[in-house]
Amino acid sequence: MNSIFHRVSIRNYQNKEVEGEKIKMLLRAAMAAPSAKNQQPWCFYVTKEKDLLEKLSGSSPYSSFIKNAAVAIAACYYEETYAPEYAQIDLSAAVENILLEADNQGLGAVWLGIAPHKERMDYVKETLHLPEGTLCFALISIGYPAEEKKQQDRYDENRIHFIGEKLF
Amino acid sequence: MNSIFHRVSIRNYQNKEVEGEKIKMLLRAAMAAPSAKNQQPWCFYVTKEKDLLEKLSGSSPYSSFIKNAAVAIAACYYEETYAPEYAQIDLSAAVENILLEADNQGLGAVWLGIAPHKERMDYVKETLHLPEGTLCFALISIGYPAEEKKQQDRYDENRIHFIGEKLF
Repeated sequence: MNSIFHRVSIRNYQNKEVEGEKIKMLLRAAMAAPSAKNQQPWCFYVTKEKDLLEKLSGSSPYSSFIKNAAVAIAACYYEETYAPEYAQIDLSAAVENILLEADNQGLGAVWLGIAPHKERMDYVKETLHLPEGTLCFALISIGYPAEEKKQQDRYDENRIHFIGEKLF
Repeated sequence: MNSIFHRVSIRNYQNKEVEGEKIKMLLRAAMAAPSAKNQQPWCFYVTKEKDLLEKLSGSSPYSSFIKNAAVAIAACYYEETYAPEYAQIDLSAAVENILLEADNQGLGAVWLGIAPHKERMDYVKETLHLPEGTLCFALISIGYPAEEKKQQDRYDENRIHFIGEKLF
């Protein structure tokens, strides 16, 4: 089934390793995203170290589940790019691709928003010792799902406005 | 094939209508995207009117191809939401879903960046008569492809950093 219509946020994970090749596919998916002027402003910090997952759980009031993940990816961007005003927008498309590919791979994942909250960005930067000029956009926690959920149907025709002829 | 690894930007379109049901699927895909606090800050203005497509071609220096599209979607957001700082980020995930679903449907599409450029946002707002409090995030031009392109391989292992054990 098309992952767009299947993907859900999974915060409970099995105590099971995720294969490196699957993580590689998620990163491949991220870098397949379009970006403004094809600037590809991204880089990815990846860890399965328990103490780091524990620390990343403190990134925000909503991130306690990270400590139970098998792997965390910090999706980051370079401060200096061709079109810096699009860096976070580009990263967002890349993160959506990671989530969709995680679903394709039978994995569960959550997108935890870091940017644009400066205090969260600083926390991750310090925790992961990101280099100067590299900023964290989002954390993605990943693991084999320990829960089953159905995607909520968010389709709402009231959000659609035709100008001129109606198309459906 | 997985649309994540297949999708490309298509700026040349056949002179052929796109079925309404396909456009509906693209909008369904957009609204299936995750959003901060599930705020779903989006709404979509859809047109196939030739004079409007022509006018939207003037939205930026990079948008002249819109006039040849079969349909344009203006992906918009409400200025007032639970987490306004995430509205553009949420819209970005929704637009990525539209592009991927367009590929699934055998359609070609391009994401034209409007936000955060105020002059482009104002131009679309005036052209489409968007209501007060509704802002344009991006335009997506859609049609049956009149060109064939292979996705560029953007995978770059230098963008991946492991902290602790390498996963692959």
